Parts: sequence; C-alpha cells; structure tokens
Amino acid sequence: MGEPHNPSQQNAIDMAKARSLTAVNVAHVRDFLHTGSAQWRRREQIVDILSKDPVFDKSTRVFATRKELYIRGQALTNRLYELQEIHNWSTQDINLALSCLDDGLPIGLHNVAFEPVFRLQASPELFSKYAGLVASKGIIGCYLQTELAHGTNVNRLETTATYMPETREFEINSPTLTSTKWWIGALGKTATHGVVQAKLVLPGGKDIGPHLFLVQLRSLNDHTVLPGIIIGDIGPKAGNGFASTDNGFARFDHIRVPKLNMLSKFAGVTDDGQYVTPPHAKLSYGGMLYIRSGMVTTAGWTIARGATVAIRYATVRRQGELGADGLERQTITYPSLHVRLVPLIARAYVFIELGRALTRGFESLAKGLSAGDTSQLAEMHVMTSGLKVLVSTTAIQDLETARRSMGGHGYSAFAGVGRTYADYLPAATYEGENFVLDGQVLRAALKAFRGLFTSTSGHSLSPTSQYLRLLRDKNLIPPELDSTSWSHPATAILLLEWRAALLVNESAQTLSEPDATLTQRVSRAVTEAFVAARVGEMIDSLKSALKQREAEVVGKVYLLYLLTTLESSLVDLLSFGLFRATPGHPPRARDPTRSLRVAIAGLCNELAPEAIGLTDAFGFTDWELDSALGVYDGKVYEALWARVQNEPLNQTEVTEAYEPFIKPVMTRGRKLAAKL
Amino acid sequence: MGEPHNPSQQNAIDMAKARSLTAVNVAHVRDFLHTGSAQWRRREQIVDILSKDPVFDKSTRVFATRKELYIRGQALTNRLYELQEIHNWSTQDINLALSCLDDGLPIGLHNVAFEPVFRLQASPELFSKYAGLVASKGIIGCYLQTELAHGTNVNRLETTATYMPETREFEINSPTLTSTKWWIGALGKTATHGVVQAKLVLPGGKDIGPHLFLVQLRSLNDHTVLPGIIIGDIGPKAGNGFASTDNGFARFDHIRVPKLNMLSKFAGVTDDGQYVTPPHAKLSYGGMLYIRSGMVTTAGWTIARGATVAIRYATVRRQGELGADGLERQTITYPSLHVRLVPLIARAYVFIELGRALTRGFESLAKGLSAGDTSQLAEMHVMTSGLKVLVSTTAIQDLETARRSMGGHGYSAFAGVGRTYADYLPAATYEGENFVLDGQVLRAALKAFRGLFTSTSGHSLSPTSQYLRLLRDKNLIPPELDSTSWSHPATAILLLEWRAALLVNESAQTLSEPDATLTQRVSRAVTEAFVAARVGEMIDSLKSALKQREAEVVGKVYLLYLLTTLESSLVDLLSFGLFRATPGHPPRARDPTRSLRVAIAGLCNELAPEAIGLTDAFGFTDWELDSALGVYDGKVYEALWARVQNEPLNQTEVTEAYEPFIKPVMTRGRKLAAKL
Repeated sequence: MGEPHNPSQQNAIDMAKARSLTAVNVAHVRDFLHTGSAQWRRREQIVDILSKDPVFDKSTRVFATRKELYIRGQALTNRLYELQEIHNWSTQDINLALSCLDDGLPIGLHNVAFEPVFRLQASPELFSKYAGLVASKGIIGCYLQTELAHGTNVNRLETTATYMPETREFEINSPTLTSTKWWIGALGKTATHGVVQAKLVLPGGKDIGPHLFLVQLRSLNDHTVLPGIIIGDIGPKAGNGFASTDNGFARFDHIRVPKLNMLSKFAGVTDDGQYVTPPHAKLSYGGMLYIRSGMVTTAGWTIARGATVAIRYATVRRQGELGADGLERQTITYPSLHVRLVPLIARAYVFIELGRALTRGFESLAKGLSAGDTSQLAEMHVMTSGLKVLVSTTAIQDLETARRSMGGHGYSAFAGVGRTYADYLPAATYEGENFVLDGQVLRAALKAFRGLFTSTSGHSLSPTSQYLRLLRDKNLIPPELDSTSWSHPATAILLLEWRAALLVNESAQTLSEPDATLTQRVSRAVTEAFVAARVGEMIDSLKSALKQREAEVVGKVYLLYLLTTLESSLVDLLSFGLFRATPGHPPRARDPTRSLRVAIAGLCNELAPEAIGLTDAFGFTDWELDSALGVYDGKVYEALWARVQNEPLNQTEVTEAYEPFIKPVMTRGRKLAAKL
Repeated sequence: MGEPHNPSQQNAIDMAKARSLTAVNVAHVRDFLHTGSAQWRRREQIVDILSKDPVFDKSTRVFATRKELYIRGQALTNRLYELQEIHNWSTQDINLALSCLDDGLPIGLHNVAFEPVFRLQASPELFSKYAGLVASKGIIGCYLQTELAHGTNVNRLETTATYMPETREFEINSPTLTSTKWWIGALGKTATHGVVQAKLVLPGGKDIGPHLFLVQLRSLNDHTVLPGIIIGDIGPKAGNGFASTDNGFARFDHIRVPKLNMLSKFAGVTDDGQYVTPPHAKLSYGGMLYIRSGMVTTAGWTIARGATVAIRYATVRRQGELGADGLERQTITYPSLHVRLVPLIARAYVFIELGRALTRGFESLAKGLSAGDTSQLAEMHVMTSGLKVLVSTTAIQDLETARRSMGGHGYSAFAGVGRTYADYLPAATYEGENFVLDGQVLRAALKAFRGLFTSTSGHSLSPTSQYLRLLRDKNLIPPELDSTSWSHPATAILLLEWRAALLVNESAQTLSEPDATLTQRVSRAVTEAFVAARVGEMIDSLKSALKQREAEVVGKVYLLYLLTTLESSLVDLLSFGLFRATPGHPPRARDPTRSLRVAIAGLCNELAPEAIGLTDAFGFTDWELDSALGVYDGKVYEALWARVQNEPLNQTEVTEAYEPFIKPVMTRGRKLAAKL
C-alpha cells in the first residue's frame, strides 16, 4: 500500500502551492489596502510589538470567564499605554494599536463615544477645564444615552436635568426603574465620568428635551461610586460577545452638577434659567455620525477576517470527489463553495475603500459643524444611515457564510469566526436600529423625488440622489442586456440606479397603502446605487493606484461586487422589467437570470486561484486572527490538536462529574439491566 | 405634571390586555400543538417537577464556565434518572423530560445517535449481550464517525478495522493525526462505549469500505480511558453553544475487539475472513435518517421559542411614535416589526405538524428496513435531505430575526435567544452539510424528471416529485393571478409546484454548463413544493381538529406560511413568468409583486393581535424559556433588573482591575495632562 497519505503534511504543501500560483503581488495589494507602504510598515511594527508581549497572549482567552475577560481587557489597556510611553507612540499609533486588537476594550468607548461628543459640544470653559484629562485618559469617560425602556426615540428619555437657578446647578435624576441608563459601554466598572443625555427642565417645569451633561460617576481617589448614584454591569451578552466591555447601568438620585457641566456649545441656559436656542436643531448629531462613518471601514475589515480564515481553510481542506492528483479535492475548487467565499473578498475590498472616503467626508463635515455650518449634515445623515444598515447586515451575513463554509470545524470556538461574529453582531441594533434608519433613508429619498418635479430643471442632485436623474427625462430607457453586459461595470451601475429610481417612484405612488417591506427595499436600493457609483469611481482610479496585473485582478474583484449586488436585487430588477424575462409558453420558459449567474460563477472561478493572495494582502498575522483554521502555514489540523490540549476538561483523565453523577447513572442502569 | 408614567407597571397592563384581546382559545390550540390534552397535561406535570427541583435551577447558569456547565449537565442527567425512579416515569416520559431541557445533555447523544444505530444494525448475538445495558444506561454510548480531516465523504475515512482471523478479532487503528475521530458528542468525558465507523480491511489487505464496530472506551470500574486509546474534549464551540456536551476526539492504537462487536446485521465477515455482502448497500442509512427526521420537529419548537420571547417583548416594549393612549406605541403594532415576527409563528406551526408526519414516516421505514425492505429508503432520503436544509436554514434565520427584533436588549444574554441560537447553529452543518444535501436532492429530482419521459404515462410519481405532473401535459399552464389569488392556498401551492417543475427543467437543460447556485435553488424549490402540498393537507384537516374560530385563525397562519414562501421565491417566480410583470414603459413600470406583499402585510396585521395567544399556545413556562424579555407576565424591565444583580462583576463595588490596571492608566494620564 506504500506510504500512507498524510493529510496533515498535505496542508502545508497545498498552502504553499496556492501561494506560488497567485498572480498578484501580495505586497503591492497590501500597501494599496493599507494606504501605502509606510502606513503598512507602521502597522506591522506595532503588531509585532503587541504579539510578542506576553500580556497580549491569546492562547487561553477562549477558556476565560467573562469577569476574567473584563480584567484581561483592563490589563491590555494599561499595557497599551505603557507601550505608548516606551515606544513614544503618537495618538495615531495608539489608535492603530487599538484597531489591531480583537478584545473590545472599554477604553474604545472613551475614544469613540465619549471624547468626540465632548470635543464637539463642550463650551470653551468646560473644554479648557477637561480637555487635557480627556485626551490623556486622566479621566475615563462614557456616553450615557439609552435607558432601560428607551432607545431610538431620545425625545422620550425619562432622565431629567433640572436647572436650579439659586445654586446654578443641574439636578440629574432618574425618576423610575425604567429611566435607568442601560447598555452604556465602559460604565459598568470602568468610567469615572460620563456625558449624560437628559431632558433639560427649566425653572417652572418646562421640558426642553434631551441635552448633554458631564457627570462625575466615580471617585478619582479610590474608584468608589459617588453618593446618590447606583452603577453596575448589565451582564453577559449573546454568544459571549463583547465580553471585555462592561456595558453598564446607572441610576441618579437627584445628583447635582455645576452649570458649567452642561455641554453648551450650541445651546445653553442663562444663569437665571432662560434657554438659549441652538442655531441648528441638529448640530448635536455629529457624534453619532462619527461612529456610523467609521462603521463602513470596520465592516470591511470584519469581513476581511472571516474571508481570510475561510479561504485559508478551503485551500487546505480536502473533501469529497477525487481530483487529478488522486486526492480528494480542495474545497476551494468546488464552485458551490467559492461562489460563496470569493464575493466576501469583493465586499471587504469595497467597504475598506468606501469607508476611507466616508471618514474624509466626516472630517469635512466636522470642520463645518464646528463653524456652525450644517449644509452637509442632511446628506451625511442619509448616507451614513443607509450605509450603516447595508454594511452591518452584510458583514454579519458574510461572517456566518464564512463560518458555515468551514463545515463542522467552523462551529469550533478555535475557528475564531464565531467570536468575531458575536462581537460584531450588535452592529445591527446599536447606533440606530436598522429598520428605523431605513425609514429615514426613505423619507430623504421621497423628499428628493418630490424636489425633482417642483424645482427648476437646473436643480443639482446630491450624491445620494444622483440616480433620480433617470426619472427626469421621460425618454431615458434602461440598458438592453445581453451576455456581454456583465463585463461592463457601467451597465451594472446603471441597472442599480434604475432600480433605485423605480422603487422610489413606486414608493411615492403607494404611500397611502404601504406594504410593510417597501421601506427596506427602497433604502437598500438607494444605498446600493450610491455605493455602485462609488465602485465605478474606484475602478477608474485603479490604474493609477496599482500596477497592471494587480489593477486587473482588483478590477475583477470590484466588478464581482457589482454583479453580486445585482444578483441580490433580482426581485426588484425583474419586477420593474429591468431584467427582461424570456418570452414564451411558461412550461418552456428559460431562466433569464442565467447569464448573470453564469458570469458570477465565471468570475468566482477566475478569482478563486487569487483568493489566497487577495486575502494575504489584508495582512493579518496569526496572532491577530487567533484561528486554528486560518493559520498562515495551512497546518490546520495540527493547530486544532495543539489548542484542544489546553481545554480545562482535558486536564484530568477522569472528569469530576464521574463519581457524583455519571457513576450513579450507570450503576442504576446495570441494576435495571440485570433485572430484565 | 401629575403621577409620572411608570413603564414598568405598564408592562403588566399591556400584557394582560393583549391576552384579553386574543380571539383564540389558547388551551384548545395548545392541545392541538401538543397532540391532545392528555399529552399536554403529562408534559405540564413533568415540567412542573423539573422546574421546582433545585438541580434544574437556571438562575446562575449564564455565568458558569464551560467546565461547570458540563458538570452541571451530568448533575441534571443523574437527577433525571433519579426522578424517573421516584415518579416511575416511562421511557416516553423521560424522553419528554429530556425534550423540555435546554442544556444539550451528552446522554441525548446516547439516545439519538448511539442507541438507534445499535438497535438497527447489531447482530442478534451482539444485541442480546448489550441491549439491556444500552436501554438502561448501564453503559453510555456515542457514535464515532467524523474524523479530524474527514466529514461528509465516509468512504475516505482513515480509521481501519482489520480482521485478524487467527484470533477472530478486529484491530481498530488510527494511522494518522487526521484520522482521529473528532466532534463526537458525549465522547470527550462521558461515554464508556462507542460505535466506531471504520474501513473494514480483510486478510490480504482488501479494503471493503466503512463499517461499524462496538468499541469499549473507558473502564466500567473507574472511568479511566482504556489502554491504546487517547480521548479528550475538543474544546468550546462558537458562541459558547452546546457547552454541556463533551464533543470529543479519540485515537486508536491497534485496539482489538472481538468479531462479535461488528454491527453485522446486514453485512459481516466469516470466521476465516470472507466478506458477507449486505442485501442492500444503503440499509445502514437508517440512523442518519432518524436524526434528520427529528430535525423538522426540533426546528419548529426552536422557532417557537424565539417567537414567544420576541412577541412577548414586542407586546410590552413601547417605542417611537405616540399612540392613541398618549404613550409610545407597542412595537408589535408597527407593521415593519410584526411583518417580521408573525411569519415566525407560521413557520413554527407548520414545522411542528410536518415533523410529526415525518416521524411517523420514519417509523414505517424502520419497520420495513428491519425486514430488509428498502423500497421507501430513496424517497425518505431525498425528503429528509431537502427538509433538513430547509428547516435548519430557516430556524437559524428566524431566531436571529427574533433576536434582532428586540433591538439592543436582544443582544443581552438574559434575552435567552442568543443561547438558543448558539445551540441550534450547528444544525446547518451537522448530519450532512447543507450544500452537499442540496446536491443529493437535485440528483433525485433529475432522475424523476428523466423518468417522466422514459416511462409509461401511468408511472406514478412519488410524494416528493408530484410537482413534475405539471410538465407531463404540454397544455397545462400556470394560474392567472389577480389580487384575490392570495386568499386561496391552492393557488400558492400550485405556483410553488410550477416553480419547482420549471427549475428542474432549467437544471436538466443546463447540466453541462452549471451556474453554481442552481443546485440550491432547485433543492429549495422541490422541498418547498413538497411542504406546500402538505400545508394544503393541514389546512383541509383543520376543521376536524379545532373549533371554528381556532380553525379559522390557524388556517390564516398556514396561509401566511404559503404566502411568505412565495415572497421568498419571487426571483424564481418572476424569472419563469409565473408572476407576470406589468407591461409598460419601464420608467412608469409598477411593482407586480405588490398585491402579494400587501396580502402578507394584511394577514400579519390581522394576526398580530392573535400573536400572544398563538405563542402562549406553545405552552412554554418561564423556566423553560429562561428569558428576561419573554416572561409570561410581561414585566421585562423588572426581570432584567433582577438578573443583573447576579452578575459576578457586580459583587464588588470597585473592580479588582482598578488597582493594578485602571489606576495606573489614569495616574499616567493626569501626569501627562498636568504637563500640557
């Protein structure tokens, strides 16, 4: 029989071979994804430092309790700032370091939810008092908005901040159990200060609605909770997600804070209790827009993690039919598998690029806002709302696609994708519930649609409503399709714009009798039309960003994004006649969507051999992925074997459960069997 | 300002009112779902005993480590069999008790994976030696098939069982790391025996392919692992799912078992090593079909759990716009929410009923198999393959829909749905990978399709290929649709059958150039046509099973199942012209799917006030659901508050992380701030 085939050694052979067959230069594409080789090298250096530091070791993390994971998170945080001192890291460096961790640290909430709101909305006096402490983490902050019984609708928050002119203070109060602030990241056990969203109540009882107040929560001497405040952690999350973060609750019993502590850059109260109206009601939206604009990039890198693990595993996993080499085929070679996985690469590439553009957009918006300019606010709001829904829904789904593509082993915690999934999952419900956001996108689309017919023809359309130009000219008709259409990005983009336009039109005609799902369809269509146009621009700019071979491959990746977007919109495309059904007697009817599906299958098949290179280019190290199935060298079985040795249940040969529980079951059973 | 509104008290008022407004008699529907009042009462008594027993308390389960959860699982198991003795429970009773637990006990694998295979395939001699011990749990078994590097394709398993005629023994051997048995439920720390799937090798080295052998794994004296075997637990699962189950690994180093231990009812080896061929190659498929046929019922009850929790929460959660009562509206009243949740009830009701029919089908099959009759095997195989994919995919998705419908709080572990999700998730990949099963359904459909034209016209179609009758007669055409079509189940069923028929036809025409997703579409369509026909039968039988009012409401629930199935098949229906697009110049094109969508919205709106009654009828107690958001009395905020008090992080005011980690960060920060 000869030397038996050794699948474990074969793993490494398969992986090395896949790398040698990749056409793209991985380093070039990696620099492109990381905005240049200097930025990449910086990241590589930081990851190297972190991964070699024993504090950041992940080898037994999966066995820890949530409490241990919270404490671990604080140890990582402290070490991060030690390392910052040691290596003289800039703020950009430390943020880069934070972005390389997959532990969801509470300090992230200080940086993302507390500090930006403080910086955008603190009065100059409050700013000068606290800005240094906030920036240097001399105090640790959190942002307290959601209450136990109130989320999306901030106008119904129960927490009050009543102005007391006699002492020039605000009294913060939680009148009921349900007004308890809840879900607040970093509040449970960490933060010393918080920005509290509370209804401003003026002398005489007039309720002015939600405003922000800086409140100290814990003593800076010994971290005890200040009198009159009840604080705690709200407990574990689904799938053990965000275990290191102390999402918390807080209840305030008539706590006083000085008048200075109102975040009153845009709206305030005079000493005697008169309200000073803000110049624009929505100036305070900046904080949430900042978080949402970052979510696109995060979604891209999240999909990238899942794609890297799943594609590495599919490269070395052999299963099913025998291939030309006499061994079972590598699973990546099955069309039914790579047609699921290669599109993940496409979405990761698109979201990473798109997120950068959006962050630049936010920076411009923030500059405007701080000068009181709100002209970009509405557009940015619609854009981030639609994108937040699109990218969060997509990334959650893609992670699960990645996990499921790995079959049984994908369900092992050692695969790592389940952990990423559990941590990413709340993106669907935080920072604006997706269904509520869809409604906001619909409203904006209808407003733009109505403007189309009321304003002069020279009226310019905003970037998110460019697709509406198609409805202006009654002579415009959608493109004719044939099997060559699918190699032209422009055709796909135009179809997606037509879809958005016709859905908005449909929505405008049926407003009085809605059908319960049209809002979601419109929001998705409008957002995908916007993204498609951006992808068109990305394709155009590839030639200047990459060498020819890499530009060609990444161009195909972007095209695949467009085609799979079309595939997922087929109901709309077919409904509105954008995708003509083949005429003919139904029993002989043939599938008009076939040419698109064949084009997708063809592209995935072409790109499958590039999948290893394209995912290597994300640049994840084994330490970052922390996945036995995503190891760089492909030796997945050895990696699984090594990890199970640490399982606590395996530390004794006979389980503690044997004497008290298992033995009695069998003893009873044998007695019963003897009686039979 | 008067007495402030108290949302916490309002919870109970809202829930009581919703119950009072439900039109159906909950007890009647509950008896219907539980196959009669006697069966329901038995279940109620058993749940009452379990929930009052302190061993089955769940109040701190969510904080336990996986090791603690494994030990807890064994304690529950032992207590279950103690209770069986105390209360003189029948086998049916103890199975009922097991089905009421949500801890995923290892003993379940003995019952579902080990015992049925043993009973179906043991020779009479082996059976008489072990049957009593197996039935009474005098030994605890597991079923060892999957290996570290081999899953779906059993023909490539590496483990060997070599017959040694000189001693009349088999030598079980794992030649490589990758041949290690892996994922085996109850193997890690519990089982004493296992049925091992291994390649039978005859003297001279001839490999006969996979066969089954009973192997003792652990000592019956002290539970130590027998010499020559390495056993352990494979570690935690994604999302901390199946934490109580010790999925394990085992490696065999030339272990000997007597010839008797081959499960040789259908195929064996003579004393001198000649192979005795089985009468039918697939006789041994019984075990997997048994597990798969049970999966339909399980999926139904799994969706029922999620639906109950989400609908109770949506009944008491108030958010957003103000309603007629001056309070924010209950979220269940939003069409965008109830259009997502009410269909979950429909799928739970259908799968529960359908699963029962399937289990009866399996019992008839098993009777046939044990007499060597394999005539029903192929049909049952196709049916369970397609259904397994359909129900597992659907239930996973529905649980997540339920969780997400609860907004932020749905992500709390205390909501309970995340736990159910993590435990249910592997259903997508175990017992046949879904994409592989789809391929088997496609092959069977194509075989039936070809038979259509080669055999005589009198050839009768099997239940899973009834839809093919539509292709026989070239004069048959699909139904014309108008807005009244959606009140007729027959129309929906016929459309789904046409869809299956045309997709199979499409598939037969494009075999040489497949498009990578058609297999999944065909499998889904064929299976949904089969289920739709069964739902038609269920609707017909409602009048005899329920009183008029309940029959009407449940009839609408079944109709909703059909309509939402149509909605999810719109791409196919539109592609094949089964759903005619409105003609007209595209910019003026209107959505032809609107009437179906409006019908679904209307049905959901009609059924939303029945949602509490229809989910109460599932009969879950608070102990069973273990969900703060799904409490029967609706006091969700008090339930959340009570649960957070047990959080380990809340047992000290100042966290242990303060001194070593948080304090240094802030101290450093204040020094830095002082320098600014």
